[in-house]
Parts: sequence; C-alpha cells; structure tokens
Amino acid sequence: MDTIYGKEALVVFSGGQDSTTCLYWALSHFSKVHTVTFGYGQKHSKEIECAKKIAEKAGVSFRYMDMSFIASLGRNSLTDTSIKMDEAVPDGSFPNTFVPGRNLFFLSAAAVYAREIGVSHLVTGVSQTDFSGYPDCRDQFIKSLNVTLNLAMESQFVIHTPLMWIDKAQTWELADSLGVLELVRTETLTCYNGIQGDGCGHCPACRLRMEGLQKYLSKRQSRCSR
Amino acid sequence: MDTIYGKEALVVFSGGQDSTTCLYWALSHFSKVHTVTFGYGQKHSKEIECAKKIAEKAGVSFRYMDMSFIASLGRNSLTDTSIKMDEAVPDGSFPNTFVPGRNLFFLSAAAVYAREIGVSHLVTGVSQTDFSGYPDCRDQFIKSLNVTLNLAMESQFVIHTPLMWIDKAQTWELADSLGVLELVRTETLTCYNGIQGDGCGHCPACRLRMEGLQKYLSKRQSRCSR
Repeated sequence: MDTIYGKEALVVFSGGQDSTTCLYWALSHFSKVHTVTFGYGQKHSKEIECAKKIAEKAGVSFRYMDMSFIASLGRNSLTDTSIKMDEAVPDGSFPNTFVPGRNLFFLSAAAVYAREIGVSHLVTGVSQTDFSGYPDCRDQFIKSLNVTLNLAMESQFVIHTPLMWIDKAQTWELADSLGVLELVRTETLTCYNGIQGDGCGHCPACRLRMEGLQKYLSKRQSRCSR
Repeated sequence: MDTIYGKEALVVFSGGQDSTTCLYWALSHFSKVHTVTFGYGQKHSKEIECAKKIAEKAGVSFRYMDMSFIASLGRNSLTDTSIKMDEAVPDGSFPNTFVPGRNLFFLSAAAVYAREIGVSHLVTGVSQTDFSGYPDCRDQFIKSLNVTLNLAMESQFVIHTPLMWIDKAQTWELADSLGVLELVRTETLTCYNGIQGDGCGHCPACRLRMEGLQKYLSKRQSRCSR
C-alpha cells in the first residue's frame, strides 16, 4: 500500500494483537509513526515490555506514560487484584474488566502528546464489532471524542480506527495482508493472565483471539485449496 | 433559592474565587454537594490547602486526586518552573499558562468519580467571558465533552457552568447574592504567585479579580446611594 496520508501518526499502543496490527497498518499509511503506551496499574507490566520490544523491532519511537491515577478512580478486575476476573456480565451492566473512561483518558493524553510533537493523526485499535460491552470502544464515542479534542485544544486531530468495523478473524487477515501474521501471533500479549503469544487459552481475551485466528486460518486454507 | 434540582452534585473545586462561588451556588441548588480537587504539579500546593479548608467550612465532602501526569504531557509556566510566566500572548497562540487538555482531564476524572458515588450532576466554574484564551473554557467544548462523557460511560451526566456567561464583576455579584462575598474575598486563592485573598496584585489573575471586585462594589455602592 502507498502512504496515502503521507504524514506522521501516533499509535496508541499496548503491545496486544489489535494495536500491533494498527501499528503496522499505520506504517503502511503514514510517512513516520510514533507510539505511546500507557501504564494504568495493570497487573501485567509485561505488556509494557512487549510493547517496547515490538516498537523497537518496527523502528518507531516509543513513549511510555504512567496513567496509574486511572486505577484510583474506579474499581475493576484489571487493576484491582482483590476482585476476581469475571466472565459473566451482570444484566444491564458492564463486564468487571471495564475501566471506566480508560479510552477517554488514553486518547486524550495521546492527543496532548501528539500536539506537543506536531502530529495530528491518531491511530487506535478499538473495535465496535468485538467491543465486549465497553461503551468507549464504539464508533459514536470515538467521533464525539474527536470533536471534543479538537475543541479542547483548538486543533484538527483525526482519529483513525482501522479495526472499528472488522472482527477478530478479519483483524488476523489484516495482519496477514501487512505481512505480520506470525509477528502478531508470537510477540504480542493479549491474555488477561499475562502470557505472551497464544496465551493461557482460557480467559475471554485468549478465546476471542484464538477463535478469530482459527476462523481466519481455515478461510485462508480453503482459499488456497480451491 | 430553592433546591431546584433536588439531587446531589459534584463540584470541580480548586479553592479559587470561581469554584468557591460555584460551590455555594451548588449548595443552594442541590440537596447534597461533594467536591473534588485536582493536583497537577502546581507550584502552589497552598491552593489545595485552601480548597480543603473551604470545603470543611461549607460542610461538604472533599476528595483530592493527584493528576500530576498532566504536567508531563506538555510544557507550560504553571507547572514548569523553568518557564517564566508570561502575560504577552504570542499571535495565534495561547498564553503560556495554558495546560493543554487540563479541563478535559479534570472533568473526565470528575465524571468517573461521580459515577462511582452515584452522582450525575457536575458543576464547574469555567467561563467563556473571561476565558483568557483557553479553548477548554468555552461553552462549545463543555457541551461536546458532556456528550462524549455520556457516550464513554453510557451515563447521563449534566455539566452545570453557572459562570459561563458572566464576567468577574457578575461573579462577585453572584457570591454576594449567595451571602459569601467576604468568604470568597478572604479565603480563596486565585493568585498565580500563591497569595491568598487579594493576592499579589500584579499577576493577570489578581488584576482580573480586583478589577471585577471594584466594578461590582462601585455598582453596589451606586445602587445603595440611589
């Protein structure tokens, strides 16, 4: 693909499957790419190490920002080890892995940082398709936030969401088309239990990831055998 | 005034003239009032002490939150002592007291906290009239943020801005009508140089505050002598 935007972009980067795919998407669309990784009191700081390694390999700048104040705002199972991670979502509620306002803070901090380094294009791996009940992954939230950020700083940010309308299988397909399927498969960390690559296999994130991979690989297989 | 809303509210509270006036406005409009004060690497932590004392006197809950990560996002003269505070605003730019995204982060954190304590009404002292060139004090930003917060957390927040369309003289008038003119005059801290009450008298904040007070007092005087 050509660099259709031809400008610099900042990728909100966690070292997981989605944001790593977005990083390589950005590399194929922008002339220069930066990454920013947020710490927010995760139990698995290994995520941050993974992110740094992937950024180094991709040859892009890596900036880490401590946003651990987020953990003090609300109770959730990702940042509070006293809460058991729960797959069952109470009726009319969010999964207890929901960190209220997380993407709001991440994208806002990314925008302030982007403005400092003279970048107006932001890339994030949120997806409405697999949004797991998180309202801050929906397209309407992202678009509203884009307007709010522009008004807050009198700027012209453009938030790109390459995964918004695709599912996990299609995200694997995108990674494959970018030539990084194996890299994403082996070097990223998505697992809630902190195991790199294929992960623990049990947690919701691992199951979603593995189901998507199997679906894509069997589609590719049937395509090749035609 | 009656408590026209009859519900609980959270006031974004700095211990300055504006937010203290808002605190008493909230006390006259809501059945219960909470406050939240943010630290963001201010040179003057005395602000926080002032805020706490005023909240105690008003009999409302006081919550302090450390948001010092904001200081690391951008350079400005309020949080970085290596930059001289500058009154002159470069053409087409912001005053260098501008902390990019400050109100964005404060109101977002306030909303997450409000949701935790079951409160949906937020009160902030931003004013478009005396906005000093800060885009994140304008009405259009606040309204856009209100929608963004609702979408981020699937909630129904209502942001109240009692000072949005009034100037400093009218803010003093509001404080007077709420019976707290002397309290606001003597116990709040607005001065950039950290001096409580009437302040240093030289910095832009002191001059704006004093001009407003004199304007209101002479208006009141002429009203009384009629």
